[in-house]
Amino acid sequence: MNRKLRMGMIGGGKDAFIGAIHRIAANMDGLIELVAGALSINNEVAVESGKMLFLDPERTYLDFKTMLQKEAAMPADKRLDFVTIVTPNFAHFEPAMMALDLGFNVVIEKPITFSLEEAKQLQAKVEATGLTLLLTHTYTGYPMVKQARQMVKDGALGKIRKVWVEYPQGWLSKLSEREGNAQAAWRTDPKKSGKAGAMGDIGTHAANLAEYISGAKIEKLCADLNIMVPGRALDDDGAVLLRFDNGAAGVLMASQVAAGEENALKIRIYGEKGGLEWAQHEPNTLLVKWLDKPTEIYRAGGGYSFQSSYMTHNTRTPGGHPEGYLEAFGNLYRNFAQTLAAKIDGVQPAPESLDFPGVADGVRGMAFIDNVVRSSQSDAKWTNFEI
Amino acid sequence: MNRKLRMGMIGGGKDAFIGAIHRIAANMDGLIELVAGALSINNEVAVESGKMLFLDPERTYLDFKTMLQKEAAMPADKRLDFVTIVTPNFAHFEPAMMALDLGFNVVIEKPITFSLEEAKQLQAKVEATGLTLLLTHTYTGYPMVKQARQMVKDGALGKIRKVWVEYPQGWLSKLSEREGNAQAAWRTDPKKSGKAGAMGDIGTHAANLAEYISGAKIEKLCADLNIMVPGRALDDDGAVLLRFDNGAAGVLMASQVAAGEENALKIRIYGEKGGLEWAQHEPNTLLVKWLDKPTEIYRAGGGYSFQSSYMTHNTRTPGGHPEGYLEAFGNLYRNFAQTLAAKIDGVQPAPESLDFPGVADGVRGMAFIDNVVRSSQSDAKWTNFEI
Amino acid sequence: MNRKLRMGMIGGGKDAFIGAIHRIAANMDGLIELVAGALSINNEVAVESGKMLFLDPERTYLDFKTMLQKEAAMPADKRLDFVTIVTPNFAHFEPAMMALDLGFNVVIEKPITFSLEEAKQLQAKVEATGLTLLLTHTYTGYPMVKQARQMVKDGALGKIRKVWVEYPQGWLSKLSEREGNAQAAWRTDPKKSGKAGAMGDIGTHAANLAEYISGAKIEKLCADLNIMVPGRALDDDGAVLLRFDNGAAGVLMASQVAAGEENALKIRIYGEKGGLEWAQHEPNTLLVKWLDKPTEIYRAGGGYSFQSSYMTHNTRTPGGHPEGYLEAFGNLYRNFAQTLAAKIDGVQPAPESLDFPGVADGVRGMAFIDNVVRSSQSDAKWTNFEI
Amino acid sequence: MNRKLRMGMIGGGKDAFIGAIHRIAANMDGLIELVAGALSINNEVAVESGKMLFLDPERTYLDFKTMLQKEAAMPADKRLDFVTIVTPNFAHFEPAMMALDLGFNVVIEKPITFSLEEAKQLQAKVEATGLTLLLTHTYTGYPMVKQARQMVKDGALGKIRKVWVEYPQGWLSKLSEREGNAQAAWRTDPKKSGKAGAMGDIGTHAANLAEYISGAKIEKLCADLNIMVPGRALDDDGAVLLRFDNGAAGVLMASQVAAGEENALKIRIYGEKGGLEWAQHEPNTLLVKWLDKPTEIYRAGGGYSFQSSYMTHNTRTPGGHPEGYLEAFGNLYRNFAQTLAAKIDGVQPAPESLDFPGVADGVRGMAFIDNVVRSSQSDAKWTNFEI
Repeated sequence: MNRKLRMGMIGGGKDAFIGAIHRIAANMDGLIELVAGALSINNEVAVESGKMLFLDPERTYLDFKTMLQKEAAMPADKRLDFVTIVTPNFAHFEPAMMALDLGFNVVIEKPITFSLEEAKQLQAKVEATGLTLLLTHTYTGYPMVKQARQMVKDGALGKIRKVWVEYPQGWLSKLSEREGNAQAAWRTDPKKSGKAGAMGDIGTHAANLAEYISGAKIEKLCADLNIMVPGRALDDDGAVLLRFDNGAAGVLMASQVAAGEENALKIRIYGEKGGLEWAQHEPNTLLVKWLDKPTEIYRAGGGYSFQSSYMTHNTRTPGGHPEGYLEAFGNLYRNFAQTLAAKIDGVQPAPESLDFPGVADGVRGMAFIDNVVRSSQSDAKWTNFEI
Repeated sequence: MNRKLRMGMIGGGKDAFIGAIHRIAANMDGLIELVAGALSINNEVAVESGKMLFLDPERTYLDFKTMLQKEAAMPADKRLDFVTIVTPNFAHFEPAMMALDLGFNVVIEKPITFSLEEAKQLQAKVEATGLTLLLTHTYTGYPMVKQARQMVKDGALGKIRKVWVEYPQGWLSKLSEREGNAQAAWRTDPKKSGKAGAMGDIGTHAANLAEYISGAKIEKLCADLNIMVPGRALDDDGAVLLRFDNGAAGVLMASQVAAGEENALKIRIYGEKGGLEWAQHEPNTLLVKWLDKPTEIYRAGGGYSFQSSYMTHNTRTPGGHPEGYLEAFGNLYRNFAQTLAAKIDGVQPAPESLDFPGVADGVRGMAFIDNVVRSSQSDAKWTNFEI
Repeated sequence: MNRKLRMGMIGGGKDAFIGAIHRIAANMDGLIELVAGALSINNEVAVESGKMLFLDPERTYLDFKTMLQKEAAMPADKRLDFVTIVTPNFAHFEPAMMALDLGFNVVIEKPITFSLEEAKQLQAKVEATGLTLLLTHTYTGYPMVKQARQMVKDGALGKIRKVWVEYPQGWLSKLSEREGNAQAAWRTDPKKSGKAGAMGDIGTHAANLAEYISGAKIEKLCADLNIMVPGRALDDDGAVLLRFDNGAAGVLMASQVAAGEENALKIRIYGEKGGLEWAQHEPNTLLVKWLDKPTEIYRAGGGYSFQSSYMTHNTRTPGGHPEGYLEAFGNLYRNFAQTLAAKIDGVQPAPESLDFPGVADGVRGMAFIDNVVRSSQSDAKWTNFEI
Repeated sequence: MNRKLRMGMIGGGKDAFIGAIHRIAANMDGLIELVAGALSINNEVAVESGKMLFLDPERTYLDFKTMLQKEAAMPADKRLDFVTIVTPNFAHFEPAMMALDLGFNVVIEKPITFSLEEAKQLQAKVEATGLTLLLTHTYTGYPMVKQARQMVKDGALGKIRKVWVEYPQGWLSKLSEREGNAQAAWRTDPKKSGKAGAMGDIGTHAANLAEYISGAKIEKLCADLNIMVPGRALDDDGAVLLRFDNGAAGVLMASQVAAGEENALKIRIYGEKGGLEWAQHEPNTLLVKWLDKPTEIYRAGGGYSFQSSYMTHNTRTPGGHPEGYLEAFGNLYRNFAQTLAAKIDGVQPAPESLDFPGVADGVRGMAFIDNVVRSSQSDAKWTNFEI
C-alpha cells in the first residue's frame, strides 16, 4: 500500500462526541485520511464541520445519499475506501446498506442497527458483497484484553468456570433527558435507541467482552432490567445471570445509575487453575491469579517472553507509557486499515490484523438485547439465547 | 464492672481455626478471660488444649454438658458469664439451648444453627430467658462498615437503588475434601454443613452485610447455585438477584471456586446522590462516590468532624495504623462484653455497644439459605423471602 | 486557519522509538500533516521510511540541510510550517539553529541540546527570530498535571513546603549497552548523551515536572550520582536534595537500575493545607489530600465545577475513558499547533494553548544537568543552581 | 511453660496512646497477663487506671521505684516476669536500668533512651545481666517485612543496590503544640524528646526498617533537617542520603508536615535481579518486581510453598484476613514471650521467636539520631555513621 486509505464520515458533526473519537482513532497511525463527510442533517452544521476538519468543500455533503452516490462515481484514485457511520442507532442501517451496495467498506459505531432483523440483513449484505465491516466495540481493542483472550485460548487457566462482568456508570442518575442533555435524550428514547437503554448502550459491550475473552458463547440467561429513575422510558439498570456453551456460569451487571461511577467496565474470569481480572479504568494492567502462587501483574508492553503477539501488535509504546481508550479505538481502525490494505494489495492480512469486531458481533449484540428484554419480561427463570 | 467477664468455650481445641480466632478476639481488649472449656470431643485433645491455654485442669471438661452443669452450680463470683460455641454448624443448637436454659449468655459462630427451624427455636429461647446472644458475623464489626451503615441511615446517599455484594474465594477450586483437607471436608458435607455450601458459608456473610449497611431487607430473590467441581456434594458457587423492601435491586455473588481469590468480600451501594464501596481486603478504606464531586477516601480513625460515633467506637488506633479482621472480630466481643457488663451493673449500654449481630440475624441467615436453595431448585424467576 | 500545518521531520526513521511517538502525537488531532522528512543518516533507511510514511518522494530528503534549504525555497502555500528534530541529543543543535535561521518553527525532543552553552545560544536565536519552539517534556502535557499546577497556583494547598519527585526505571539494570541494545548504547555514551546519563534522560523530566507544578524554581541542590552497573560510563542512578526559591525543600530520585520498574514517574507536593499526588502510571487520577477531611480522587474529565480550564483543554474524552502518554504528547503538539495557527491568523492564542514547554525549559534542563554533575563531584553539601 | 507471663507497666495510664497499644499487643495471644502497674505520675490517674484495668489495688503503684522494689521482693510464683516502659523518651533510662538491676526483663517503647550515651549504658547493663530486652520497633513485626528480609537474605534479588524508605505524616502541619495537643507538645520539646523531632520519632523507624530488610548497615549519610512550621523547636521534616556498608545507595525521607498523610511508611529495595515494595498502609501485601517477568503480589498467609517461615510464624490467619498494626505489635510481644518462656523452661527458643528488636537496635537508633543531627549541621556532604 503506497497511500493512506480514504475515509468518509456520516454523522459526527462538531459537538458530536463519538464522531470526534472516531476521527482521532482513524488519524492516530497515519494510515487513514478523512476526505469526505456528510456530517450533519443540519446543513449549516454540516458545512461548518467540514471547514473545521479542513475538508474540500466539494466533498462536504449535505446528506449521506449524495455523498455515497458522488463518491461512487469518482475515479478509483480519489474514491473513498470506506465510510464511517456515527449517527444514532436508528440511522445506521440505511447508510450501511447503501454503502455496501455501492462497494464501500464500512465502519459502524455500536450497536450495529436498531433491531436484530436489520442486523441480520446487514450481515447477509456483507457476506454477499465480500466487503469488510468494522463494528467499533472499543474495549476489545485494548492490548491486555487481547492478552487475556489469548491466555484463555492457550488453556493457561484450565476450563473456564466463571465469568463476572460489570459495567457501572452514574451519568443517568438524574432524569437528565428532561434537563437538556442531548446524549441522555436520545439514549433513553425507545424510538432512537431501540428496545433497551442501559443494556443496549453498555450491557452489549459487557456481553461482547465476556464472549471475546472467554471464547464461550452465552447459551441462556435470566435478566432483571429496571427503570430506577421515575419518568424514564427505558431500562437504566440491570443484571443478568448467564450460562455459557462451555458450562461456565456468569453474571453481567450494567447500570447507568451507579452514582459516582464513570465508565467502570471490569471483567473477571476464573478457570480451574487461575483467574484473570481486567478493568477499563486501568487498562494496561491484567491481574493473573493462581491457585498456588502469587498473583501476577501483567502490564501492556511488558516485554515478557510469554506474552501474546496479539497484545504486542496492539501496543505502540514500551511498558510504563500508558495507552488508553483512544489507542484501543485506534487499534480497531489500525487493524481494519491493515486488513483493507492487504485486500487492496491482494495479500493475506496478518491474523493479528484480522482480529477486530465485525458484523457477526453486531448480530450477537442485537440478539443479546432482544433476549435480555424477553427474559426480563418473562416469569421463567431461564431464557434461551436465540438469534 | 470491676472484673473481667468469664468465658467458657465449647469446641475450638488446638488446630481448630475459628476457635483460636475467637480467643484472640476475646483476649484483645482485656475485658474477658477464658476460664473453662470443653474444647474437643477427643478427650486427649481436650486436655492438651486446656493445658496449652493455661486453663485450670478442674475447668478443662471433656464434654459440654458436664461443663455447663458444673459451671452452673458454681458460686456467682466464679461461674461463667457466657459460653462461646465454635463447633461445626450441626453442633451449635444443643449446647446453645442448654446454655441458655442454665442461665449463660452465648456467643455462636455463624451460621447460627443447622436449620431454620432450630434457629427459630433458639430465638424463642433467647427471648424467653432475656439472655444475650452474639452471633459472630465478623464483617459487621469493621469500623468502616459502621461508617457506611451510618451514612446510609443519615440519608447521605439519598434513596438506595442498588446493592452489589460479592464474596469470591478460591480455596475449593479442587476437590480438596477428598485430599485430606478437614475444613473442606466438613464444609462440603451436607450432614455437617446444612442445605447449602458456599451460600451458607460465605453467602450468608454477604447477605448479612448487604442488609446491615443498606438498612433494607431482602424481599425476593432469584438464585443460581452451582457445583463447579465434579464430585462435590454442595454448591461451591452461586449468584442471586435480589429485591429489597425499599425497592432497591441487588446482586449477590459468592464463589469458592474463584481460583486465586483469598477472601475478597466487597460491597457497593448506590443511592440517588452517591455510592459507597468497601472491600474486606483493605478494610480501613471506604470509598464515598458522588454525582458531581470527586470520590472521597474515608479512612478508619480519620478524625474528620463528620464521622460516625459507631466508627470511632470500633477503632482502637488513629488513622494510618491498619486494623484488620481480628480487630473486627474483637469489636463484636468488646461490644458484647460492654453490653453484658452494663446489664450486670444494671445500667443501660451505650447504643454503640448494643450494635452487634444477634439471634435475629441468625434467623435471617438461616432463612436466606433456605430461600436461596428453594429458588435455585425452582423454574420461576422470583422466590419470595420467607422466614 | 483553513488548513493543516505542514511538518517536516529530522531523524525518526523506521525503528526509531521516539520519532514514531512524535508522529502519532502530531497526527492525532488532525491539525498537522507530515509532508517532508530527512529521516535517517542512512540513505536507504531514509528512503524506505519515507515510503512507509507515504511521503512524496520529492520531499523525502537524505540530509537535513538539503531539506531545510529546499523547503525554505518553496512557495508559502507549500512550505513547511515547522520541523521536528528527533535525533540523539548531540545532533539537536545544528538543525535547530539552521531551521530557525531559515524561518521555520521548531519542535525538539528533550534534552534540548548537548550542552548548556548550546541551549543558551538556541534561546538567543529563538528570541531573535520570534519563532516558536516546542520542547517535548511530555509529562507536563497530562491533564491532571495541569490541574495540579493550577491548584497550587490558586493557593488551594497554601504555601508549598515539600516536593518529592521520583522517577524509577529498571531497564538499565544490566550492562545492556554491551548486549546490542541500541537505545542503551547511545544513552550511556557521554559523546552522544552528554554529561549525565539517568539524570539527563529522566532526572530532567522529574525536575521539570517539579518546577512546573510547584511554580517554584530550584535554587540549590545536593546531588549523589552513582554508576551501579560496573563498566558503565555514565550515571545510572541518583538522588538530589533540593531547595526551592520559595523556601520549599525537596528530594528528586531518578534511577534506571530500579529493577522491575517501568517508567514510574511520580510526584508529591505538600503545602500548609494539603497535598497532591500524581503518578504517570495512572495519569488520569490526581489525589488531593487535606489536613482535616478525606482525600479526594480528582479524575481527568471529571466534570466538577471547580476544575481547571487547563485540565479540560487538554482532555479529549469524558471521565472514565483513560487517556495516556500519547495523548499527553499530543497535547504538546496540539497546543503548539493552536499557537502557530493563531500567529499565522494574526490572533492571540488562548492562554491554555500557550501552555507548552519551550526553550526556557530547555535551558533550565541543561543547567540542571550541569549543576547536578557539579554537585555530585563536590564535597560541599550545597551547590547553587547556576545558569 | 504452664502459665502466662506476668507483666508490670510503667506509664501508660488512661488516655495515654501507646500504653493502650502495648496492652492490646500483650493481651492478644493469651501468653501474658498484666498484673501490676505504676501507670502515672499523677496519683489519681494511677489509681483510676489500675481500676479500669482490673488490677489488684495492692499492685497498683504510685511510682515505678516502689513497684520494682516491692515486686522484686515477691515470691517467684507471683513476681513480675518483665516490665514494660511506656513513659516519654526522657523517662526510659532510669526505670530500665533499675528493672534490670532487680532482675526483671524489659520492654521499652522506642526510641530506647534520651541520648546515645544512655543507650550504650543500657546495652552494657543488658549484657551484664543476661536479661532480655524488647524494643518495640513495631514495623519489623509485620509478616511481609519478615518475608522481605528473608528474600533479600536468600539472594532472591541479587546484590542490593538501592534502598528508598519514606515516612510521611501530616499531623504536625500546624503548630499543634501550642494548641493543647499533648502528644505534639512533648514530641516537639527538646527536653522531653531529645535532639531530634521527626527524625527521632519516625526517621528512626524508617532507618531501622531499611537496615532490617536490607541486611546492610548505614555507613555514611548526608542529612537535611528542616523546621517547616515557624515557632517549632525541633525538626518536623527531613531527608537523608544514605550509603550502606554493602555499597548500596539510599534515600530516607521523613516528614510530619506532609499534609494529608496518615502514617505512610513505605520501603522499596532494588537489587540486580529485582525489587521489593512494602507499605504499612496495606501491610499484607509485598510487591516483588522482576527484571524480566511480571511483578508478583505476595500476600500474608498466602500459602505458597516458597514463603518464609519467619512470615508464617508471625501470621495468625490465612490469606485474606487482614492483620494490621496491632498484630505486628503483638508479634513483638509474642516472640519476646516465647523467648522468655523458653529461657524459663531452660530450652532454646526457635529462631523465629528470637527475631525481635533489642537493645542493639536501640543503640543504632540513638546513633542514627546523633549522626543525622550532626550531618544536618555540617557543610560537608558526607558524615560517617559513628556509634
